[in-house]
Amino acid sequence: MRIAVLAGDGIGPEVTAEALRVLDALALPQVELVHADVGGVAYHRHGHPLPAATLAAARDSDAVLFGAVGDPTCDALERHLRPEQAILGLRSELGLFANLRPAKVFAGLEHTSALKPEIAGAIDLLIVRELNGDVYFGEKGTRKLADGRRQGWDMMSYAEDEVERIAHVAFRAAQGRQGRLCSVDKANVLETSQLWRDVVIEVAAQYPDVALSHMYVDNAAMQLVRQPGQFDVIVTGNLFGDILSDQASMCVGSIGLLASASLGARTTAHGTFGLYEPIHGSAPDIAGKGLANPMATILSLAMLLRHSLGLEDHARRVERAVAAALADCILGGDLGGTHGTRAIGDAVLERLS
Amino acid sequence: MRIAVLAGDGIGPEVTAEALRVLDALALPQVELVHADVGGVAYHRHGHPLPAATLAAARDSDAVLFGAVGDPTCDALERHLRPEQAILGLRSELGLFANLRPAKVFAGLEHTSALKPEIAGAIDLLIVRELNGDVYFGEKGTRKLADGRRQGWDMMSYAEDEVERIAHVAFRAAQGRQGRLCSVDKANVLETSQLWRDVVIEVAAQYPDVALSHMYVDNAAMQLVRQPGQFDVIVTGNLFGDILSDQASMCVGSIGLLASASLGARTTAHGTFGLYEPIHGSAPDIAGKGLANPMATILSLAMLLRHSLGLEDHARRVERAVAAALADCILGGDLGGTHGTRAIGDAVLERLS
Ligand SMILES: CC(C)[C@H](C(=O)O)[C@@H](O)C(=O)O
Ligand SMILES: CC(C)[C@H](C(=O)O)[C@@H](O)C(=O)O
Repeated sequence: MRIAVLAGDGIGPEVTAEALRVLDALALPQVELVHADVGGVAYHRHGHPLPAATLAAARDSDAVLFGAVGDPTCDALERHLRPEQAILGLRSELGLFANLRPAKVFAGLEHTSALKPEIAGAIDLLIVRELNGDVYFGEKGTRKLADGRRQGWDMMSYAEDEVERIAHVAFRAAQGRQGRLCSVDKANVLETSQLWRDVVIEVAAQYPDVALSHMYVDNAAMQLVRQPGQFDVIVTGNLFGDILSDQASMCVGSIGLLASASLGARTTAHGTFGLYEPIHGSAPDIAGKGLANPMATILSLAMLLRHSLGLEDHARRVERAVAAALADCILGGDLGGTHGTRAIGDAVLERLS
Repeated sequence: MRIAVLAGDGIGPEVTAEALRVLDALALPQVELVHADVGGVAYHRHGHPLPAATLAAARDSDAVLFGAVGDPTCDALERHLRPEQAILGLRSELGLFANLRPAKVFAGLEHTSALKPEIAGAIDLLIVRELNGDVYFGEKGTRKLADGRRQGWDMMSYAEDEVERIAHVAFRAAQGRQGRLCSVDKANVLETSQLWRDVVIEVAAQYPDVALSHMYVDNAAMQLVRQPGQFDVIVTGNLFGDILSDQASMCVGSIGLLASASLGARTTAHGTFGLYEPIHGSAPDIAGKGLANPMATILSLAMLLRHSLGLEDHARRVERAVAAALADCILGGDLGGTHGTRAIGDAVLERLS
């Protein structure tokens, strides 16, 4: 089994290193690691944020462990050379169409949220975001209208098969949780959303054990503040998912603890090909100082073990070790604690057995 | 001066009636009221949620006082006959391109928010949302692709003059507040957003006294949870504004107190033509029971007096009366109080002098 490690920029290498120590401690037979450059570091070394060799390394693996990209020295570059474009490139080139973002408050950390602790404490939801379509990947451009005015434009669309496959992922995820799925759209205004809603309803016939509801995106943004505990699984398109998943993460509070998976269509020997990354960014301000909290990356590794390598037991072991460290007040600076990157890695390792 | 009163559905007529009592008490000379049907009630009486006569009445007035639309008995209708379409029709037919949504926590009501009181208490922002363009009003449809798959599509776009005029509204609003404007877009992905950002930067040259910043919409959704007190004025497009303004309202907590103005390009004798409405909906569950809180509609009337009739002093008198009633614990059921619609109207009237 081969894992491509794309550590990236800023704190990416530091947090990835701790996740790899955890992987090492699991002593899995036959796991090969391939390291490759991505993001600003790749631009500086190879002239492109997603070099062909990196893409090939990712493609030839069973899973990708991704750190973070984002580098202020690249801010002035043209858009297609900026580090974030590596993420979009990996998603489209690798067919990673299903982004899974669990948002849950760890016991004892309810106070880290901006929401009242009793409201934050009830959060236990999963956002399933479509990643390969929508206005992200449609035709786009800037043109001069007949009268000389400039106009920027982007085509938003979804075809039925694109909605079907993400709906199946979401319904199956709901089956493994509380069996409730809320599909978020803007069907009162958008044809793209109406098609989305129609197809989700069609797919629902195959999942009679899942309770399906629909919510407009503006209302969803309100409900995620008012009472986020009401949600089990949310499924939505690429653009709304970008906004709502970040909002939900902030409702949890402890961004340094949130992991994500982006799954593709290709199956591996024991699961699904996917890319795994913490939801936090590259945090250039604290990079290289040993201050970053690696827990989100370690929890992303747990998702990798579960979804791509089929190692559910190992995934749980890692998740339990992180929860145990948190319960013992091993807290990074992001949570008001004093533990550094390495100390947190050590603490998780100690609790792994 | 003529005001068109479109009370609409559900609690719309009740809350509007209280606002009209307040208007009456101001004893303004030469104010004429014209009532017209809108929403579900208009559909049931005239076969359309926005009858031509209603549109004409709105057009022939200096301002529109709008209650709420939304009627569960219309849920099964085709989209173009549903009550919400009346709002979209009024916005486009009347050229109401600038939606102003102030979000501020009244002193003493910090606890009504889902956010921690110290975070909610710091909220004092204005969202300026473009209302006539974006993916809302572009071409759209559902088609069969060559291979037979259905696809829903919507064209997103902004032309430079559309961005310019909303930018001017936002910069001027910032001049009248703390002088800080945050433009929200998704310029790392969308050409529409890149044009938006470019034009906002161009317009900024005319407002050297305003500090302009830019934020991606996903980050804005996070920051509105994490620390909404950081914002003064936010300007954004129609779709992002739909989501963020509802999110910001919920961060405030007391939805029954939030007013909005939708301004057009046409000037009136003493201001700008506009439509004014509470941001809450028609609340069919409590309609006709005298339970709805009319304060948001009364505060919308205050915005009407300010922006369309040029009566700043009268606007302040109304706003002070509402604040005084709240300070005296005149609270609707939405705020955990026991005061009904009429009692709240009475309380505001008593404090008007
Ligand atoms: C960097 C950006 C293009 C990306 C997105 O919008 O999808 C990011 O915000 C995310 O959510 O992973
Ligand atoms: C009813 C709907 C079309 C409308 C919108 O999306 O603009 C509403 O959500 C609003 O914000 O006024």
